[in-house]
Amino acid sequence: MDSLTYGQYSLVQNAFSFTIAVMFAATVYFFLGRSQVAPAYRNAITITGLVTLIAGYHYFRILNSWEGAFTVSNQAVTASDSKFNDVYRYVDWLLTVPLLLIELILVMRLSPVETTSRATRLGVLAALMIILGYPGEISAVSGTRWLWWGLAMIPFLIIVFELFVGLKKSLDSQPEAVRGLINQARWLTIISWCFYPIVFVFPMIGFTGGAATTAVQVGYTICDIVSKAVFGVLIYTIASRKSAIETLPQLSVQTG
Amino acid sequence: MDSLTYGQYSLVQNAFSFTIAVMFAATVYFFLGRSQVAPAYRNAITITGLVTLIAGYHYFRILNSWEGAFTVSNQAVTASDSKFNDVYRYVDWLLTVPLLLIELILVMRLSPVETTSRATRLGVLAALMIILGYPGEISAVSGTRWLWWGLAMIPFLIIVFELFVGLKKSLDSQPEAVRGLINQARWLTIISWCFYPIVFVFPMIGFTGGAATTAVQVGYTICDIVSKAVFGVLIYTIASRKSAIETLPQLSVQTG
Repeated sequence: MDSLTYGQYSLVQNAFSFTIAVMFAATVYFFLGRSQVAPAYRNAITITGLVTLIAGYHYFRILNSWEGAFTVSNQAVTASDSKFNDVYRYVDWLLTVPLLLIELILVMRLSPVETTSRATRLGVLAALMIILGYPGEISAVSGTRWLWWGLAMIPFLIIVFELFVGLKKSLDSQPEAVRGLINQARWLTIISWCFYPIVFVFPMIGFTGGAATTAVQVGYTICDIVSKAVFGVLIYTIASRKSAIETLPQLSVQTG
Repeated sequence: MDSLTYGQYSLVQNAFSFTIAVMFAATVYFFLGRSQVAPAYRNAITITGLVTLIAGYHYFRILNSWEGAFTVSNQAVTASDSKFNDVYRYVDWLLTVPLLLIELILVMRLSPVETTSRATRLGVLAALMIILGYPGEISAVSGTRWLWWGLAMIPFLIIVFELFVGLKKSLDSQPEAVRGLINQARWLTIISWCFYPIVFVFPMIGFTGGAATTAVQVGYTICDIVSKAVFGVLIYTIASRKSAIETLPQLSVQTG
């Protein structure tokens, strides 16, 4: 582990703790709010809450691993004999990234056939992307990292293309009132996701040391908050508005 | 860390534990009571419960950090080699303070446009206030502390002005029966919040040592209980009364 100042160590520690609070609070918000959307959208909201729940759990482990990887004494930070387990991020993404794409598909409420085919294709591509990135992440050899990075970029680019082009047509079939929000959700996904392969490349382009470690950890953390919790709030808002448009008369007798 | 007597150490420790109990109990109260208010107010109550949930989590971490920062042996308290992590408070406030303002706006049930614009403006100002306070809090240099204190006071004063003047007009549109309660919630916010910048100034005006540390920690704790749990009970009462006035006939069939 690179050596860190106390300020860097503490910033990362507090960022992880902040994320735990955000993820669990978001989960409770989605699960409580679930009964307030029309039944057709409840599945999307359940999955939205599962994503933040899974992420909250992993940030708990990530924080514990971070605290175990250093010995802090009188504000001097030294690496301990335990390695920081960054692989928790991959375990998390393997579950949450396919689910994130599925929640976006579900909230659009396409035809059952289109929902199944798009959700399956995007889910499999997302899982493949994470699996291909992993052998690169655990390697310290620059060539190996570039190889797996390049392979993982193939499903990544197909997903981005699907979101850009494939979903664009389905977007036009959405109610006027939510088209802007769904478009925001698409763009939020595309932009926040682009950060991940960039961060991956940092150590391969000579960006190392305590400042780089801090930047990478805080960067991934901000991306996770945006792409899971903020994205989830967007999905929830879309589901609420669509429920109001589609099922206003019946909604008052809906129960959860 | 300043040296503390056993009584001081123990008072702070017990105050933190008390707060954990208060925050989690308040959370359960709000979440269970949520289904008893009209659907229009459930979002406000969800957020009220999220605030106390997030605060409960952070007081857990604050208590652990406090116990780790001292070695207690035969009632002699000495600083350990771990630093007390006061930053958890900032991490907490960054999340809860915008949410507190949003729950006050939501329970007023203004027009959707006014709700969105006020909630966004107050939320952003609150987050800005916390972010600007943080560099001062972690500095030991009096000039630096004053600088950031002064900068954080700008959004603080704008928020207080909004609550005083901006919300006054909206208050007049509220039902007679809850106007007094909403007014209390406004004043509770203004008064309890004024304590925070005062506590911040303590070390800059020569107020140091074990007694000051104890006063600051117990002071912040009392403020957090008042501005989150007591304030939340007020919000819940307002939501209940408004539900009774507005939706009495339908209320008996609402569930969930």
